[in-house]
Amino acid sequence: MGRTVDVVELVDRAREGQPRAVARLISLVEDAGPRLREVARALAPFTGHAQVVGLTGAPGVGKSTSTSALVTAYRERGERVGVLAVDPSSPFSGGALLGDRVRMGEHATDPGVFIRSMATRGHLGGLSWAVPQALRVLDAAGCDVVLVETVGVGQSEVEVVSLADTTVVLLAPGMGDGIQAAKAGILEIADVFVVNKADRDGADATARDLKHMISMGRRERTDVLWRPPVVKTVAAGGDGVADVVDAIDAHRAWLHDHGELDRRRARRAASEIEAIAVERLRSGFGGLRGGAGLEALAERVVAGELDPYAAADRLVEGLGA
Amino acid sequence: MGRTVDVVELVDRAREGQPRAVARLISLVEDAGPRLREVARALAPFTGHAQVVGLTGAPGVGKSTSTSALVTAYRERGERVGVLAVDPSSPFSGGALLGDRVRMGEHATDPGVFIRSMATRGHLGGLSWAVPQALRVLDAAGCDVVLVETVGVGQSEVEVVSLADTTVVLLAPGMGDGIQAAKAGILEIADVFVVNKADRDGADATARDLKHMISMGRRERTDVLWRPPVVKTVAAGGDGVADVVDAIDAHRAWLHDHGELDRRRARRAASEIEAIAVERLRSGFGGLRGGAGLEALAERVVAGELDPYAAADRLVEGLGA
Repeated sequence: MGRTVDVVELVDRAREGQPRAVARLISLVEDAGPRLREVARALAPFTGHAQVVGLTGAPGVGKSTSTSALVTAYRERGERVGVLAVDPSSPFSGGALLGDRVRMGEHATDPGVFIRSMATRGHLGGLSWAVPQALRVLDAAGCDVVLVETVGVGQSEVEVVSLADTTVVLLAPGMGDGIQAAKAGILEIADVFVVNKADRDGADATARDLKHMISMGRRERTDVLWRPPVVKTVAAGGDGVADVVDAIDAHRAWLHDHGELDRRRARRAASEIEAIAVERLRSGFGGLRGGAGLEALAERVVAGELDPYAAADRLVEGLGA
Repeated sequence: MGRTVDVVELVDRAREGQPRAVARLISLVEDAGPRLREVARALAPFTGHAQVVGLTGAPGVGKSTSTSALVTAYRERGERVGVLAVDPSSPFSGGALLGDRVRMGEHATDPGVFIRSMATRGHLGGLSWAVPQALRVLDAAGCDVVLVETVGVGQSEVEVVSLADTTVVLLAPGMGDGIQAAKAGILEIADVFVVNKADRDGADATARDLKHMISMGRRERTDVLWRPPVVKTVAAGGDGVADVVDAIDAHRAWLHDHGELDRRRARRAASEIEAIAVERLRSGFGGLRGGAGLEALAERVVAGELDPYAAADRLVEGLGA
C-alpha cells in the first residue's frame, strides 16, 4: 500500500492472467479508496465477456463442494474460471487469490482459476458495491465464467440474482425448510435447481416436490417463460455436475435467444449506477449541518414535531436537488 | 374512494378507537396517493406512544399462533393492541381491520384489537414505505403495543428489526435449519428467543443450543449488552406466553434505562426519512431525459463505454444536486 501503482498497467497484466495483478485490483476495489474510480474506468473497456453464474442455497446443502465441482467441469472445457465466495456473515475478507486452500485445495495451483473470498458484513445492503466491481475485475481478467457463491441467507440470495446471468439454487433432501423456503420465494429467483446429496434418502421426493411446484407456478405462461430444470447431483463425487453445466448453458442460450441477456445486463448496470448515485447522495445527507441535518430531523420526527415526508423534503432541499 | 375525506377528522376518530377510521387511514397510506403526505402530517403529533414488537421466524414455527396468544395476553392487561401481519410473498393486502377471521378468529370482535394484513410483494425492499406509515396510524390510534409479524424470509426479518423496539425470533424443535440460520445472522437481530412447540421432542436441546450460542457470541461484552433470554412456549395452549410478555417488558425496561429506546427510535426515524428522500431522488432519475437518463447510461456501461462511477456522476449532475 502507499506505493503508487499504475492502474492501467495492472489491468494489462490482469488481462494476461497474472494472478497477482488480479488480486491487487480486487484489493483496490475492496479498499474503496480514491483509486476505485480509476480502476473502474480502466476496466470498463474489457468487461462484458464473462458468464456470471450465481449459486445459492441454505447452509448445509453443499455449496462449496458444488462450486468446486463446477470449477473442475469448466476447467475440463478449457475455460478460465473466477470464483467469488461471498459471505455476508463473516468479517474476514481477502485470502490468497490462488489460495483459499481450505475451501478449494484442488484448484489452488491452477493458473486458470481465480478464487476470492469476500466478506460483506458491515456493508449495508449485503453484497455491497464491492462485489460487482470485483466481478468486473474477473471479467476483464478474461474469465469465461464467474461463479458467485453466497452463504444463502435471504438478502444475499436476492442480490446474487441481481448480479447473475443464471442463478442456481441448491437444495438437499431431508431439509424440510428447504421446500418451505422455496415456496416463499426461491421459486422466483432460480433458473436452475440442483438437488445435491442425491444419494441420500428423500432425494427423489425433493426433486418431485420441486417439479410439482414449478409446474404449478408456471402453468399460466409456459409459452414465454423459462422453466427451471431440476438436476440431481452428488457433488462430492462429481455425479450429475455435467448436467448442471448443460442446464446453465441451456439457460444462457435461452437468455440470448430471447434478448433477455442484454435486458438483464442493462438492468444490472442500471441498478449498479443507481446504487452508486444513491450512495453519493446519501453521503451528502450526513454532511448537512444545523436543522437540515438527518439527525436533527430524525429527533424532530421522534418528538412528533415533523412528519417523515416533510423531513425528507428538507433533506432533499438541503442537497440543492 | 374518490369521495373527499377530512383527514384531520379521520385521525380524530382513529384516536377515539373507531376501527373504520383506522382502516381508512391505513388504506390511504397503502394507496400512496396524494393524500399520503396529508395523513403523515396529521398523525405526527400523536405518535411515539406504542411499543413496537417484531415477530419473526421460519415458516412452520407457529408465528400466527404466537401472535394471537400474545394479543390475548396483552388484552388481559387491558392494553390496546395492533397487529400488522406483513407477508412479502403475498400480493394480497387489506382485509377487514376487525376481521381476518381465518387467522385470528378469537380477536375478530374485540374492539381493543386492530388487525391488518399487509402484502409487500412488488414493493422493492420488502417491508416498504407503507409499513412504517401503517405503524404510525396504529400508534396514533392509541395502541399500547403493535405486533409486527412477518413471514420470515431473510430480508423481511432484517427490516422488522429496523422497525421494532423489541424483536422476538421464534424457533421450533427439530428444524435443523433453524439453528443454522440462527448462526448466520438471527443471533444478532433477536432481543428475545422463543422456542415454540416446546412439547415436542428436542425442545430442550434447541433451547440449550441457543443458550450456548448466545453465551459464545456475547462473551466479550456481557457488561453492556442485552443478553437475549430463551423462552419455551406452546403457543397453541398458551403455555409460556406470559413469560414472553415478561421478557419483552424486561427488554423494554433495559432499552429505556440505557437510553437505547431513544437511540433506536431516532435511528428508525432517520432511516425512514432517508428512505423517503432517496425514493424521491430515485424517482427523479427516471425523469432525466436524453443521454443523462438511467437507461441510456446503463446501455453505455454494458457496452464498456462508461464505467458505473462515471455514469453515476452524470446521473447526480442531471438532478442538479
